Amino acid sequence: MNYCSHCGSAVTLRLPEGDNRLRYTCQQCGRIHYQNPRIVAGCLPVHGDRVLLCRRAIEPRYGYWTLPAGYMENGESTEEAALRETLEEARAKVELRQLYTLTSIIHVNQVQLIYLANLPHAEFGSSNETLESRLFSEDEIPWDELAFTTIRNALQYYFADRKASPPAFPLRHIALSPDQDDLILVK
Amino acid sequence: MNYCSHCGSAVTLRLPEGDNRLRYTCQQCGRIHYQNPRIVAGCLPVHGDRVLLCRRAIEPRYGYWTLPAGYMENGESTEEAALRETLEEARAKVELRQLYTLTSIIHVNQVQLIYLANLPHAEFGSSNETLESRLFSEDEIPWDELAFTTIRNALQYYFADRKASPPAFPLRHIALSPDQDDLILVK
Repeated sequence: MNYCSHCGSAVTLRLPEGDNRLRYTCQQCGRIHYQNPRIVAGCLPVHGDRVLLCRRAIEPRYGYWTLPAGYMENGESTEEAALRETLEEARAKVELRQLYTLTSIIHVNQVQLIYLANLPHAEFGSSNETLESRLFSEDEIPWDELAFTTIRNALQYYFADRKASPPAFPLRHIALSPDQDDLILVK
Repeated sequence: MNYCSHCGSAVTLRLPEGDNRLRYTCQQCGRIHYQNPRIVAGCLPVHGDRVLLCRRAIEPRYGYWTLPAGYMENGESTEEAALRETLEEARAKVELRQLYTLTSIIHVNQVQLIYLANLPHAEFGSSNETLESRLFSEDEIPWDELAFTTIRNALQYYFADRKASPPAFPLRHIALSPDQDDLILVK
């Protein structure tokens, strides 16, 4: 950040009164420009005993497999964001079951919310962000070709949790630090 | 937003290629400036049969009672944000139990996360954002002087959930729209 988005003057990093962090502050109009984590919302769509993955058509991790997920927008709920991203990226209409993973990805300033979802009909497709979508049974999951650590975590939890009797899917609450993030996660 | 924070040129609202929403876009350097919801994290601190509330020393809702909560910062997890805000606003050291409410406050582009927490010692105080902190039993809660609808919801759920036998505190997942938000919530 170099300039004030309100008045166009130069900003500098300063410590506002009563604050304990440096903030980009406008030297002209005095506005403080806070920077905060963003929310990524998505789904783990389940159809029978298979889950739906998308192969990425965009960087980072072009060609790798992921769950449908993306940045939450202003003016929507987290559930609406998860449904929208699943429709946009996988062309799939799902029914949300529950929030399943909440991951703070500390080194990229993101909080990722993945909802467990039912995919009632095996209808899905590609998009400008997705080369192809496909249903995978547990033994078909391309573990070495997954895009992100958070996606691998969600899938590992899911296949473990559904083996419980009765199957139980408690919220998985995760803080992911850089040393735990062995799959490349570039901003 | 009027100017590009990168190069200082004027921005206009445009529809980027492949997008379906208008975005502030720089006419000079082409940068797209996305705007996304922010996360508010906080605690519902419990000490014995009482809960800790803070009386706000800042607008909006100066003088009204709230739970300790505030904007999540870059470089921290949601749990760290909740602990930090509780320490900063209430001067209270708590132990997190679990995520308890997740509220999408759609009309102000916020997602609020409230953690159920234990306050082991009755130690708390005031701060530059808090006139005073105080423990309240259920029949002492100042229901007509609460700052925000989300806080009232969390307290109502808490006192109901702890009456279950055994007490159970499932995640409360809420989407709050303007017509449901009868307490003033100003950005």
